[in-house]
Amino acid sequence: MAQATSAPAAPAPSDSTKKLWGGRFTGKTDPLMEKFNESLPFDKRLWAEDIKGSQAYAKALAKAGILTHVEAASIVDGLSKVAEEWQSGVFVVKPGDEDIHTANERRLTELIGAVGGKLHTGRSRNDQVATDYRLWLTHQVAVMRSELQELIRVAADRSEAEVEVLMPGFTHLQNAMAVRWSHWLMCHCAAWQRDDMRLRDLTPRVATLPLGSGALAGNPFRVDRQFIARELGFVGGVCPNSMDAVSDRDFVIETVFACSLLCTHLSRWAEDLIIYSSGPFGYVQCSDAYATGSSLMPQKKNPDALELIRGKGGRIQGNLTGVLAVLKGTPTTYNKDFQECWELLFDTVDTVHDVVRIATGVLSTIKIRPEKMKSGLSADMLATDLAEYLVRKGVPFRETHHLSGAAVKMAEDRGVGLSELRVEDLQTIHPLFTEDVVAVWDFNRSAEMRDTEGGTSKRSVLEQVAKMRSYLAQEQAGPAAQ
Amino acid sequence: MAQATSAPAAPAPSDSTKKLWGGRFTGKTDPLMEKFNESLPFDKRLWAEDIKGSQAYAKALAKAGILTHVEAASIVDGLSKVAEEWQSGVFVVKPGDEDIHTANERRLTELIGAVGGKLHTGRSRNDQVATDYRLWLTHQVAVMRSELQELIRVAADRSEAEVEVLMPGFTHLQNAMAVRWSHWLMCHCAAWQRDDMRLRDLTPRVATLPLGSGALAGNPFRVDRQFIARELGFVGGVCPNSMDAVSDRDFVIETVFACSLLCTHLSRWAEDLIIYSSGPFGYVQCSDAYATGSSLMPQKKNPDALELIRGKGGRIQGNLTGVLAVLKGTPTTYNKDFQECWELLFDTVDTVHDVVRIATGVLSTIKIRPEKMKSGLSADMLATDLAEYLVRKGVPFRETHHLSGAAVKMAEDRGVGLSELRVEDLQTIHPLFTEDVVAVWDFNRSAEMRDTEGGTSKRSVLEQVAKMRSYLAQEQAGPAAQ
Amino acid sequence: MAQATSAPAAPAPSDSTKKLWGGRFTGKTDPLMEKFNESLPFDKRLWAEDIKGSQAYAKALAKAGILTHVEAASIVDGLSKVAEEWQSGVFVVKPGDEDIHTANERRLTELIGAVGGKLHTGRSRNDQVATDYRLWLTHQVAVMRSELQELIRVAADRSEAEVEVLMPGFTHLQNAMAVRWSHWLMCHCAAWQRDDMRLRDLTPRVATLPLGSGALAGNPFRVDRQFIARELGFVGGVCPNSMDAVSDRDFVIETVFACSLLCTHLSRWAEDLIIYSSGPFGYVQCSDAYATGSSLMPQKKNPDALELIRGKGGRIQGNLTGVLAVLKGTPTTYNKDFQECWELLFDTVDTVHDVVRIATGVLSTIKIRPEKMKSGLSADMLATDLAEYLVRKGVPFRETHHLSGAAVKMAEDRGVGLSELRVEDLQTIHPLFTEDVVAVWDFNRSAEMRDTEGGTSKRSVLEQVAKMRSYLAQEQAGPAAQ
Amino acid sequence: MAQATSAPAAPAPSDSTKKLWGGRFTGKTDPLMEKFNESLPFDKRLWAEDIKGSQAYAKALAKAGILTHVEAASIVDGLSKVAEEWQSGVFVVKPGDEDIHTANERRLTELIGAVGGKLHTGRSRNDQVATDYRLWLTHQVAVMRSELQELIRVAADRSEAEVEVLMPGFTHLQNAMAVRWSHWLMCHCAAWQRDDMRLRDLTPRVATLPLGSGALAGNPFRVDRQFIARELGFVGGVCPNSMDAVSDRDFVIETVFACSLLCTHLSRWAEDLIIYSSGPFGYVQCSDAYATGSSLMPQKKNPDALELIRGKGGRIQGNLTGVLAVLKGTPTTYNKDFQECWELLFDTVDTVHDVVRIATGVLSTIKIRPEKMKSGLSADMLATDLAEYLVRKGVPFRETHHLSGAAVKMAEDRGVGLSELRVEDLQTIHPLFTEDVVAVWDFNRSAEMRDTEGGTSKRSVLEQVAKMRSYLAQEQAGPAAQ
Repeated sequence: MAQATSAPAAPAPSDSTKKLWGGRFTGKTDPLMEKFNESLPFDKRLWAEDIKGSQAYAKALAKAGILTHVEAASIVDGLSKVAEEWQSGVFVVKPGDEDIHTANERRLTELIGAVGGKLHTGRSRNDQVATDYRLWLTHQVAVMRSELQELIRVAADRSEAEVEVLMPGFTHLQNAMAVRWSHWLMCHCAAWQRDDMRLRDLTPRVATLPLGSGALAGNPFRVDRQFIARELGFVGGVCPNSMDAVSDRDFVIETVFACSLLCTHLSRWAEDLIIYSSGPFGYVQCSDAYATGSSLMPQKKNPDALELIRGKGGRIQGNLTGVLAVLKGTPTTYNKDFQECWELLFDTVDTVHDVVRIATGVLSTIKIRPEKMKSGLSADMLATDLAEYLVRKGVPFRETHHLSGAAVKMAEDRGVGLSELRVEDLQTIHPLFTEDVVAVWDFNRSAEMRDTEGGTSKRSVLEQVAKMRSYLAQEQAGPAAQ
Repeated sequence: MAQATSAPAAPAPSDSTKKLWGGRFTGKTDPLMEKFNESLPFDKRLWAEDIKGSQAYAKALAKAGILTHVEAASIVDGLSKVAEEWQSGVFVVKPGDEDIHTANERRLTELIGAVGGKLHTGRSRNDQVATDYRLWLTHQVAVMRSELQELIRVAADRSEAEVEVLMPGFTHLQNAMAVRWSHWLMCHCAAWQRDDMRLRDLTPRVATLPLGSGALAGNPFRVDRQFIARELGFVGGVCPNSMDAVSDRDFVIETVFACSLLCTHLSRWAEDLIIYSSGPFGYVQCSDAYATGSSLMPQKKNPDALELIRGKGGRIQGNLTGVLAVLKGTPTTYNKDFQECWELLFDTVDTVHDVVRIATGVLSTIKIRPEKMKSGLSADMLATDLAEYLVRKGVPFRETHHLSGAAVKMAEDRGVGLSELRVEDLQTIHPLFTEDVVAVWDFNRSAEMRDTEGGTSKRSVLEQVAKMRSYLAQEQAGPAAQ
Repeated sequence: MAQATSAPAAPAPSDSTKKLWGGRFTGKTDPLMEKFNESLPFDKRLWAEDIKGSQAYAKALAKAGILTHVEAASIVDGLSKVAEEWQSGVFVVKPGDEDIHTANERRLTELIGAVGGKLHTGRSRNDQVATDYRLWLTHQVAVMRSELQELIRVAADRSEAEVEVLMPGFTHLQNAMAVRWSHWLMCHCAAWQRDDMRLRDLTPRVATLPLGSGALAGNPFRVDRQFIARELGFVGGVCPNSMDAVSDRDFVIETVFACSLLCTHLSRWAEDLIIYSSGPFGYVQCSDAYATGSSLMPQKKNPDALELIRGKGGRIQGNLTGVLAVLKGTPTTYNKDFQECWELLFDTVDTVHDVVRIATGVLSTIKIRPEKMKSGLSADMLATDLAEYLVRKGVPFRETHHLSGAAVKMAEDRGVGLSELRVEDLQTIHPLFTEDVVAVWDFNRSAEMRDTEGGTSKRSVLEQVAKMRSYLAQEQAGPAAQ
Repeated sequence: MAQATSAPAAPAPSDSTKKLWGGRFTGKTDPLMEKFNESLPFDKRLWAEDIKGSQAYAKALAKAGILTHVEAASIVDGLSKVAEEWQSGVFVVKPGDEDIHTANERRLTELIGAVGGKLHTGRSRNDQVATDYRLWLTHQVAVMRSELQELIRVAADRSEAEVEVLMPGFTHLQNAMAVRWSHWLMCHCAAWQRDDMRLRDLTPRVATLPLGSGALAGNPFRVDRQFIARELGFVGGVCPNSMDAVSDRDFVIETVFACSLLCTHLSRWAEDLIIYSSGPFGYVQCSDAYATGSSLMPQKKNPDALELIRGKGGRIQGNLTGVLAVLKGTPTTYNKDFQECWELLFDTVDTVHDVVRIATGVLSTIKIRPEKMKSGLSADMLATDLAEYLVRKGVPFRETHHLSGAAVKMAEDRGVGLSELRVEDLQTIHPLFTEDVVAVWDFNRSAEMRDTEGGTSKRSVLEQVAKMRSYLAQEQAGPAAQ
């Protein structure tokens, strides 16, 4: 019986260089495609890392007997010359330099001749590009950490210096309880400290060496990858599997995530300060250095730096979505899609440098207005203290909560502040109210009562400052000390 | 009774320009902040729109009696001179030109003197910037539509020309049924057509005039906003509320969304072609113009253009997350955070231009291999036709589905193709199988049977092509025709 | 010369039901997989749409001569009985009912016998599921629109009733100019109106019929798809290509996007009201119905409804990322991944219903405090009016901006309000200041000056209200009227 | 001179319970709001953690002298009874039980009387809810890790058992070089190992105690938070700042991120297997337990499990966007918006449990077809080996790359495989080709050459397996061992 039959064959496909279907492009190469494909415009920032990586690789090839020591030395020296050209701004990009790797090798060969063509032996752009970016990023993460630690330091210093200042604390942006301004500062330090820890924890996963993985299957010349890793300072060792090594972009994604959460923290810090610098609050005033005026309204002074910081939080969240979406569902090993990650990474890292340094500037120069903070403290913010007064006399909290609520309502009904109720009034609510209740009407006492670890008492806040400084000292002692 | 007492006041806040807390920045202005704040590096692309908008505004001020006609003419002419400077590349950016608006007005005043200072009367950068971007974007959307329509046209042309070519159709990427290659092309046209419709529908919401809204409260000089809208070609009329006009970034977000969905469609189209160009499939071969080699493996020809297109889908999804996250939870009217939207918009629009044009190039030049497609058609893909054979003889489909499944299993067990089963074998499964069942073993017949509207028969595919061309013709007749 | 040789063959793969590699699962089926795969727990909400769609399909099969009219009638009646069982809550789900389609067809066949097995002729779950969801979503979009229009109506009513109330208008959350509370309300109406337009525009793309597309290649029984579309009220007609019909999830994504932008708008509206209800602002007070207390602090009344609305903005942005990421890079036609879209769609639609109705409740009952708003108006918010005063006397705006700024500074330096400067003081700044400048110190006049279309004058605000009501009236006249 | 004057006051705002503006809701409470606000439907899963946390807190209150030991014992016992009711399914939810905290305390007080009202002393739902979730999540992370480690173990076992099997390795989904199937398995193990490390690293940041922070300002009863942390097994100690403690949702976001990246990895693994199980590839076949059929096409067997896994990658990316967007820009301390995080967290954790276990099932039972893999190896995949042949004879790699490319072209032009070129043909390309070149035509040799650490040689792959097992052994020794 019959085999399945099929449709008549289609007309023979024409030469791919002929304009087949009325499209725009007809020649041998599409100039738009060249622009679409090339990465040199952004990856030339990596010239130094690309050269460093190639130098280490040349040494490893020599060690493996693939290059003579003379050849390796020639390559290493030639690459140093290329580096000098970049450094002094005289490197000339030529047509065909589609990425930094091509550009550097092309120039190397111009400088030292055919032996330059031995550099790429057993190497692929797949393991090379990953090496360059990991080298670059390892350094950037260290810089971000030191910038972030400087921000924490400034906040800790202000916390200590301004520990006496009380301000209204909010939950749901509603008046809640009196807290120290320094307690608010240390709240944000706690978040930044976690950001710093995340950057610390991800460092070994960034600083892992892909070089020596070839295009996907591994290196056939038995180069000593541990040697290369040591040469380049990869503290995380070598990537364990060559297919993974050219495929893994976790180091990008995890860093973008850590940056995204850091920027989200800063967006919340900025939101507070924007609200605190509004007319009705007036608790703080941005330095002129970080504010701008209006082109129409002569009286305006807008907290632009803070708003931009808040906005960057959204932008970096977008970068995170981008890198994850690029990777999702792609086949194993290298795909060209991954090139999309680099610009998102650069934008993220550049933004974090700016944002953290600007935040440090803002925090270093922002004026606080203790008198406005003080005037924001209203007696109803002591209602919890009033409930606790009864708790200390043995009334179950759940009951005291309602009793204090009744006092709040009584004051509201009479149009007076809670602290203006007389003791006899309070006694109609519960007999255990006695003259000593007047001690409750003191915001400083309220704050000082919260003396449990992590609370807003002066002692506790200064303890937080001290612990934060210990953390910074310990982290600066460096990875060796950990 | 006592008023609530408070903590002792904090030390008097120092001069905001003094280095208070050990931070990096100490001077009057922070150069990093200037860089952080400025938008000229990216918004200078809008020089033409900024000038056009200002010229229309000057005329409106004259119409409102705020400028004399001589003053307005002087401003309009001066702005034309500024435009010429940009056009010819001689415009010189000066310190303090933080954005395109400032730069243009500064230059205008240099050229025509103090009367230039009357241009901004009643206007704010808040309504000006929104006007500039909407003007720019209205044009870009029109260009994107024409690029997209060109892509559709190329696909429709190939569909018609190659309508005889059969290929395996997949669901779940598993062999499903024979379909026409042209049917696959028209599948993607259908998605691109929806993208085009979305861009059409959002146009009036982009092309709505904010100018005449001031900073937030409206314009106090009764400028005729309908006149300005007509002058500038804002087909959507004027923004109805001045606070909304300076606050609304829907035109950005909605465009980025439409682009994001378009790029998601293209990512799916690219995914298909990447798979189809893999070794085991081999159905298509990218033109050399859109493929590149490997730095290590001499035999490689990689479909880079398609992979980049797929990757851009992720990037633009990130941009969408970014613009939404920037806006979320910000207070009404203008906030500086919004500045973050512009670079994401530029990146999105630029990417779509590139991606659609590259896709058109790829589709214009990609080779198909009908013989490989044909060899991919396996007899089990006719199992549905076998079930339908019995349906036409009155057996309920649910039953025929199982009977055909039994035939598939019988063929598998015997290690032969479904079409190689003899009629007597099939009759052991159901007595209604007779000699005419051999007609089922024909992939072309299978495709032709699907002749319902939207199906893969030749008639239906050509009908789809014709309808798509009607749509394009109608849309090109332009908004007036709608 | 030799053919390439290969590695020795691996050991013969074992029976797939045997526990090969020490994994958890060993039997014939994995119960976890059944749970992972099934959709009935969420898609049973579609029972009515599934039945409606099947009834229309049965009629179309009869029209095409595939079913007799008796068979079709039997199926239609049987399905009505199934519907009654769902309606009255007596439908019994049985093992194997993995989705609503299977469940309904299984029950139909129990009720009417083998003829029930003819219903699925030429149909696939691929075109069936898309039809069910589109039918459901078309209705939901209409309901969302009516809920949203009710919110707009409430805001417009308050705008008219409270048009006399002035409040501080902000940009950058800094005091800017006096605006009407009603102008603020109409600002948000303008955004909601765009949301409504988007839901209107996407409706025909949701209401397009996939049924009659089979699994991917089309329907072989020439069913009249236009007839089915009319039967089911699909105003957008039929999907043009069968492969696209089973592959297209734009209708989900576009709706989730429109909802996401709507929720982003509501998050901004909620942010304003949260800030306005804070202690230092005190402009509004949420009804008790939409606020809650604290478990610890007796005095608290938190604007929970508004905070939840703001938070939902983030959640729905996440749903949008989800549906886009699910689709990105998947091969053409149906993939099981798409099942992930449904729960995100349900969550989005349910959330929008809740959020819009809650927002309407909040807006209907929120108290405003005109006296607090009034006390927030500070004289420096008239600085723009002061500049405009000089503009009207012929001074170029750019100059008046600086002059008014100088007056603001003078007042600050003296510690008085801008409006407390004497005419002679102002004259030291510019000689054109005369006695009539006192007229500037009037917030109501300031608002009334902004009488250009879209401005905050009473006339303009009431005009905005009238136009919004016209829009609502026109839209309610329905699609037929458009 | 005049003070600024203002608009006439608005009409007195009416009672908030009256229907003011035509809205839907008019009564004292809005039932929709109650539903919108309540969390019990989802947070009741935390009953055990809520009770455990309360028992520890009661002990701490006793230790601090706020409760007598009798009172504390009564509370601890009462809570145990509540736990038994939940355990045995007899706990009755009552109206007003808006969340699990309220429900448990309500029931406690019913059981033990007024003393139950002492439990909440100094505690807020703000510190309580964070404690409950952290307790729950710490356990879930541990479970996720053990599930993930099981997946790694299965992959490592298959790697060892099937180490002889060669398959085509791809980059850009194009034929690249021969690799071991086991190398592909270990590639994915490497990614999963990083996921496991991330879950390990974040554990101390999840397992940090917020309890003892009150609503925001700290606990006024000097409870010993270190004691509570030890009681509950919080290995990360106590949250350092009370405002941060109630505000910090990093533990949610960081976990959702780690899960999102894990699911992205699994999406790539699934993508490979989906492609490998397609007709043209045919390298693997899913067990029936993880595949399903088609409702229309009798021959289909779809890899549903893998597609769902790929789709979940998108869903969890959406959850990540959601939690970040919820937090972004919210004021410090607790806001009700945060409630939105919980359902996203639950969905993420539940999904990861399912996905990892399903993936383990799929991997345990998937059949490989070594003969299909072998037939996919084409001689051009040895072009790199051919270049390396010349490298070993001293030709610079850059040159050998072109020479091998010339050989590939020669073979193509002649329509033969690369390995079918005769030595004399090759010698026309380069004189250093001699008879020994035939050794190159061996895929096994090609793989064995890649014997550098991380490469695809048998030795290297088995070394990778051994190291992975060491890692697992070390991690299972537990945190104490680290």
